[in-house]
Amino acid sequence: MAKYQNLVDQLKRQIQSGIWNPGDKLPSLRKQSEHSGMSLMTVLHAYQLLESQGWITSQARSGYKVAPRFKKQQQVQVAVSRTENVDVNEFIFEILQAGKNPLMVNFGFAYPSPDLYPRYHINRALAAAARNMPISSAFNNLPPGNEQLRSIIAKRYTTRGIEISPDEIVITAGALEALNLSLQACTKPGDCVVVESPTFYGALQSLQRLGLKALSVRTDPTTGIDIDSLERALQTHDVKACWLMSNHQNPLGFTLSDEKKKQIVELLQRYNVALIEDDVYSELYEGNEPVSSMKMYDQSGNIMLCSSFSKSLVAGLRIGWVVAGKRSFDIQKLQLMSTLATSAPIQMALVHYLTSRNYESHLKQLRKKLHERKSKMADFLSTLLPKSVTVLNQKGGYFLWLELPKNIDAMLIYQDMLKANVSIAPGKMFDVTEQYNHCIRLNASFELDQQRAEALTTLSNSIIHHMND
Amino acid sequence: MAKYQNLVDQLKRQIQSGIWNPGDKLPSLRKQSEHSGMSLMTVLHAYQLLESQGWITSQARSGYKVAPRFKKQQQVQVAVSRTENVDVNEFIFEILQAGKNPLMVNFGFAYPSPDLYPRYHINRALAAAARNMPISSAFNNLPPGNEQLRSIIAKRYTTRGIEISPDEIVITAGALEALNLSLQACTKPGDCVVVESPTFYGALQSLQRLGLKALSVRTDPTTGIDIDSLERALQTHDVKACWLMSNHQNPLGFTLSDEKKKQIVELLQRYNVALIEDDVYSELYEGNEPVSSMKMYDQSGNIMLCSSFSKSLVAGLRIGWVVAGKRSFDIQKLQLMSTLATSAPIQMALVHYLTSRNYESHLKQLRKKLHERKSKMADFLSTLLPKSVTVLNQKGGYFLWLELPKNIDAMLIYQDMLKANVSIAPGKMFDVTEQYNHCIRLNASFELDQQRAEALTTLSNSIIHHMND
Repeated sequence: MAKYQNLVDQLKRQIQSGIWNPGDKLPSLRKQSEHSGMSLMTVLHAYQLLESQGWITSQARSGYKVAPRFKKQQQVQVAVSRTENVDVNEFIFEILQAGKNPLMVNFGFAYPSPDLYPRYHINRALAAAARNMPISSAFNNLPPGNEQLRSIIAKRYTTRGIEISPDEIVITAGALEALNLSLQACTKPGDCVVVESPTFYGALQSLQRLGLKALSVRTDPTTGIDIDSLERALQTHDVKACWLMSNHQNPLGFTLSDEKKKQIVELLQRYNVALIEDDVYSELYEGNEPVSSMKMYDQSGNIMLCSSFSKSLVAGLRIGWVVAGKRSFDIQKLQLMSTLATSAPIQMALVHYLTSRNYESHLKQLRKKLHERKSKMADFLSTLLPKSVTVLNQKGGYFLWLELPKNIDAMLIYQDMLKANVSIAPGKMFDVTEQYNHCIRLNASFELDQQRAEALTTLSNSIIHHMND
Repeated sequence: MAKYQNLVDQLKRQIQSGIWNPGDKLPSLRKQSEHSGMSLMTVLHAYQLLESQGWITSQARSGYKVAPRFKKQQQVQVAVSRTENVDVNEFIFEILQAGKNPLMVNFGFAYPSPDLYPRYHINRALAAAARNMPISSAFNNLPPGNEQLRSIIAKRYTTRGIEISPDEIVITAGALEALNLSLQACTKPGDCVVVESPTFYGALQSLQRLGLKALSVRTDPTTGIDIDSLERALQTHDVKACWLMSNHQNPLGFTLSDEKKKQIVELLQRYNVALIEDDVYSELYEGNEPVSSMKMYDQSGNIMLCSSFSKSLVAGLRIGWVVAGKRSFDIQKLQLMSTLATSAPIQMALVHYLTSRNYESHLKQLRKKLHERKSKMADFLSTLLPKSVTVLNQKGGYFLWLELPKNIDAMLIYQDMLKANVSIAPGKMFDVTEQYNHCIRLNASFELDQQRAEALTTLSNSIIHHMND
């Protein structure tokens, strides 16, 4: 563990136990450093982390103080809600950092359970790529990225009925870079971008990073974005782009009907608005019928379809792509400015895996497992939770969405659970409008062993406790 | 070769041979598509690439026209020059793309010759990392990145006399991401940033991407940035950051004296300006005495030291780092928003290489080879070129900087050489003020075989031809 973490933990315990109260001034950096024997830099790191997590606040010249208690936010139910400054990042940072603790039972995790990765075959592919890495690889991984890999990706789309040329594809450092570059290619700072409410927190972070305004549009937990609200947003604002997830949406889990996908594409085309289609879960459908993509209906080249292998094969490689339509060159140029290129050996390892192994049979297996585990966990939760809590379990993907009574603040449950070494993803992560503060996203891709069953029981008890409070 | 490239080449040949003249209208996308049998998208790609390279221009509704001939830019010699909009990217994109042609003799290349990479050992390390990749790697590569790798990097700095804690280090997708995140951590759009003139083009691109203003400060080819001009820049503008390369500067090749490094750090500290120290060439010193870093003199935690293994070990892995000082958390948060994390297996492969192989002995070998090759190429060039051309060959690194008479436009030589399948880096790449349009950077890390000797002869002939024109 990093040295500053000790100090962080110690101060948290002291604040929790009331040694330090809200408003109390903490020892100065220098005093704390002398006292603890840690370097100034280490103490500064600890204080900054505590500040980013909302435990303490800082002010110029007056040092660090213990923060006032977490206050419940007012909830407003609106159809279209505009946010000038998106600022979710501090909070997400804390939640992701918490997940790094190896003792944590990690229902807040964003990826499928690592025991579902075909790790042996992936490692073999990496090793094979390493043995055969040509000397020219340093040249060849400049944007748009490895040609073979782009061909394979294009071919896979063709089998799903989506006609795509390898020339349209740009390989990126994970789907997140693809989404970021796409967003940057069609906006400039200050522009309005439509997002779902709730939406993937990465979308909110990207908007923040690029100085964009979020226009959150009401999204139904089972049927998806409300078309009338979307049209109203387009009528009343100068919207430049729309960021949507059409399949197994994160965090809700719905898949848009083909009819609705078509409607959305037509509507956006009518208003000449670019669409960023985040499709990272599309391989994780249930049953044998692949899901479609909005890109299929693209007449204008104005849709940028982003995806990766992180959810369907293995996390941590940081290889994604964007089917960039008419913006392929713009996106390549932006990539040259931001990360230059994507790792050459990892791209080659993926080519090796995809050409020498049976990816389809891995996917079949994965879909089946995810379905089984998600059903099992949903069933188990419904035996634990009262009727007033809705457990939303939709076809495909691996997320469950819990709706608690509206007056419950899931952040308090999140904080309770952290102390019990269980992580969950509170609804606040997914929305700037604070309309989902009573909701929780759970990762249901894990085997329901005894430890996890106990963790879910603890979670249910905490929920019930807060409901009776 | 991508399909659109055929059309690009064909049209270039036709423009060069006068089939199409400046101002001529090209066939519409649809006509060209019917005519060539290529898809609309392919034709669009070809036209967009030609446009980005300045061969053709487009206007709404009137289609594509052949561009007017390249015009010489006026040269102005200024000490501090402010640029509202940095726009170098189209041009850099073309030059980097040109380098992908496998037939090209690539003196424009930015990395050391690939025959100098310890590829066998790197591939073995990749394979070993792949065999031993733990299941937890998906969790552990979140920012700040692999803990072992950060420790090793910190230890290497210690041996150079630079005290750094692993907690201060954030692993990034190459040095370019490190530099970008650093810049973003200390500026907001519209802010002024000091850069050298000439500077690494990546700095100019980053400024462009982040909507920052470049303040180019006069930089002497042998002694580096002019301190008086730097101070004047700080006095007259609200400068937020300064981006400098202190060792084996790209493109000039100079290394700042320790005295000057100290002066710069003190000056920036006095004006409370953040320093982004791009130190990617620091391992490539000549002889046995390591070069120092400005970070050594950092009293305020306001210096972000960025580097990578791309120049000293192998290109294409996309692993870099920033020693982030007091901005470590800010940079981690920015990374979570942009690329999320850095490839886990590649980080592990580097740990494996650095702990099991003799990196120091590789570096010694590399330094010796680079010195030999650079000297040989400089000597050869001086036999070919007239006295009025200066060949600047400074200690360390692997770049030579050619100064032609001021009235010569190196872009014309660049274009001549491209036709002969030789790439060079024209001075225009490295400066927004157009003060170095008569200069050329050459990569001197290659073995001077017959093909390269012939290419250099062709280059010299072209230079002499343009001087007599």
